[in-house]
Amino acid sequence: MNCLVGQSGGPTAVINSSLAGVIQAGIDLNYDGIFLSLNGIEGIINKNIKKVDKDLFEKNFGKDRLKKRPSSILGSCRYKLPEDLDDEVYGKIFENFKTYKIDTFVYIGGNDSMDTVMKLNAYIEKNKIDWINVVGCPKTIDNDLCEMDHSPGFGSAAKFVNSVLRQVRLDCDIYPIKSITFVEIMGRNAGWLTATSYLSNYKRDKDVVNLLYLPEDEKSLDQIKEEIKEKLKEDNNLVVAVSEGFMDKDSLLENEKQKSFDKGFNHPIIAGIGQKISDYIHKELEIKTRCVELNIVQRTSFLISKTDSDEAFELGYLALKEGKVKTNIVPFLKREENNPYKVSYSTTNPANIANKEKKIPKEWLANRKVLEEKMIEYALPLVQGQIDQEYSDGIFDYIKLEDFAK
Amino acid sequence: MNCLVGQSGGPTAVINSSLAGVIQAGIDLNYDGIFLSLNGIEGIINKNIKKVDKDLFEKNFGKDRLKKRPSSILGSCRYKLPEDLDDEVYGKIFENFKTYKIDTFVYIGGNDSMDTVMKLNAYIEKNKIDWINVVGCPKTIDNDLCEMDHSPGFGSAAKFVNSVLRQVRLDCDIYPIKSITFVEIMGRNAGWLTATSYLSNYKRDKDVVNLLYLPEDEKSLDQIKEEIKEKLKEDNNLVVAVSEGFMDKDSLLENEKQKSFDKGFNHPIIAGIGQKISDYIHKELEIKTRCVELNIVQRTSFLISKTDSDEAFELGYLALKEGKVKTNIVPFLKREENNPYKVSYSTTNPANIANKEKKIPKEWLANRKVLEEKMIEYALPLVQGQIDQEYSDGIFDYIKLEDFAK
Repeated sequence: MNCLVGQSGGPTAVINSSLAGVIQAGIDLNYDGIFLSLNGIEGIINKNIKKVDKDLFEKNFGKDRLKKRPSSILGSCRYKLPEDLDDEVYGKIFENFKTYKIDTFVYIGGNDSMDTVMKLNAYIEKNKIDWINVVGCPKTIDNDLCEMDHSPGFGSAAKFVNSVLRQVRLDCDIYPIKSITFVEIMGRNAGWLTATSYLSNYKRDKDVVNLLYLPEDEKSLDQIKEEIKEKLKEDNNLVVAVSEGFMDKDSLLENEKQKSFDKGFNHPIIAGIGQKISDYIHKELEIKTRCVELNIVQRTSFLISKTDSDEAFELGYLALKEGKVKTNIVPFLKREENNPYKVSYSTTNPANIANKEKKIPKEWLANRKVLEEKMIEYALPLVQGQIDQEYSDGIFDYIKLEDFAK
Repeated sequence: MNCLVGQSGGPTAVINSSLAGVIQAGIDLNYDGIFLSLNGIEGIINKNIKKVDKDLFEKNFGKDRLKKRPSSILGSCRYKLPEDLDDEVYGKIFENFKTYKIDTFVYIGGNDSMDTVMKLNAYIEKNKIDWINVVGCPKTIDNDLCEMDHSPGFGSAAKFVNSVLRQVRLDCDIYPIKSITFVEIMGRNAGWLTATSYLSNYKRDKDVVNLLYLPEDEKSLDQIKEEIKEKLKEDNNLVVAVSEGFMDKDSLLENEKQKSFDKGFNHPIIAGIGQKISDYIHKELEIKTRCVELNIVQRTSFLISKTDSDEAFELGYLALKEGKVKTNIVPFLKREENNPYKVSYSTTNPANIANKEKKIPKEWLANRKVLEEKMIEYALPLVQGQIDQEYSDGIFDYIKLEDFAK
């Protein structure tokens, strides 16, 4: 009895916590072989597969060390399975599942990866296959997965973003001259991660972040300019959080069509809006502006929320445990209580997640005061606790695949 | 008997460790009043001055908490004192020194700030003033201060840069396609900080950083392209460290003259070269490229080297201790031994530091193998140990001025 696990899509700080959960469940459920597919579904197609050495995993503290290791240790892919279930690639995948005697395949990923889980299950159903279950396990820093209270990876990204915003504020405040620092934050077409910026203001006398712009906003460049002018009456140095997916109402800052390398799921490459607003405001207000793009480090940060990591682990564990008996499911988090914070775990159909995007609820966007209250209530529990990191010779270090797999 | 301390120039992660050292020395040496000048020399000119509350400082763990708090807590300035010692501003400064009964003034800063220390001492000498000593305390992440083995602030910046480079590498490696990630690193006209990138490769089977470009290099765009093509034969995903001060030999990537806001010392604003090389290589090699600009967080990171912090503290302590009896000096670090690492402290004249830049020695730049060996020997001891950070409600938090001064 063997299981297989793969990781797909963009990395998060806790995607390996979910992997640790799957492996631990594999050990606890007495799987003979726990196999690892490298570069997502491509590893199965190309037989690029490793096997967990359970003794090494325990000896090298694999469970704890995987929880500290950001970014997909198994690699990733953006491979989109064909719509046509008769395509030969499906035959190849299931043949390789059979070769490795896989009875459960867990795919850790976001909304694109759930498309893969969905299609593999369509193939299973169509061909009446009864010897394998294929299940998903959610992840994304964007928090745009439907069905669930929040996505694993989001809490750590929020913890990192807000901690960096406070560092940026410390830098901004040193000169007694007017300045605006724009901080561009990830999140694709959803403003979740940028909206967590309110956490940096929590219990502060003075705001760390003064303004924020979300993909959900409809604001013209003139409105932005006026809002900034208004805030400059209160504070010399402004910090403005800008979501990478924000665009001014009139699309005046629209990018020239950038050559996208993200071919698989055809997402646009969205980055650079922060610098554009920065340039615009500099020109309009003749004031010092700059843009800090948080860039890829926000999704692979070594600053990891313990709450997020623990939840990601549980979801991975549950994915294999439930996947042992059922196919076509994805475990997810429900929030039971907020005070004290308590979650429960449930499962859903990957079709409810695949290729969909969850945006910030309209009611939350009624005004900024409402949004601030809602976001603090919603996101604060997700950033609690931190994982002690590893260092060797003074530099951040991490577990390697060879430390627990062959 | 009162002392005064100010911070100037760009922030570092340990500039407050030096401040903590000055305050602790002020307490130990029984100064009646320990005064703090806000926004550097401007605080003295405008009487924008606070006083340390010694009881609060002890009660709120000021010494330990200042060591964790990146970026100049007293604020900064880029005010350049006039060359003409008869300018009225000097009279105003010394009048205010007198008002506050200051007998020692410690100015924590880089090569520009040592210009201030030098000029105040020229005024002291010219006017035969015998009731005040003015001394400097070094800091800069650029490591470009002459006379000293290394500058406080450099070690923490190197620790941060190299830890982030490893995170960037984890992100780069997830896709099995060719890609190049350029990482732009600070350091002004000196390549020190970028050259520390070799630390990220220390004891690795596979390089984290594949190539690096320093202001000291003379390389054409063609050479860069060829070096990258060569490295792509070994590795699918390259990480290339680019110093913000690098320029191709033929200046083909030269910036249009950017409107500089750094009026004080007339430094050019140097940033953006990483993106330009990234665009160039993308066009030439038709390969996925991106640029991560580490930006301001590398100088105000909450990831702090304990070695760096301890040394910065000692220098601050020494500045006041020596400044109590002598004027016109700056304490600095000498390396006594490397194995085990051991430093001693000495003092020098600010004129040896002011307005000068220390570059990487020519011999070290003979070839990359030599540079790597030299940089590991030189910089590795400086990144050892880390300071446990503060968090409140899950987000990075820090001491405030009100916690120890009024």
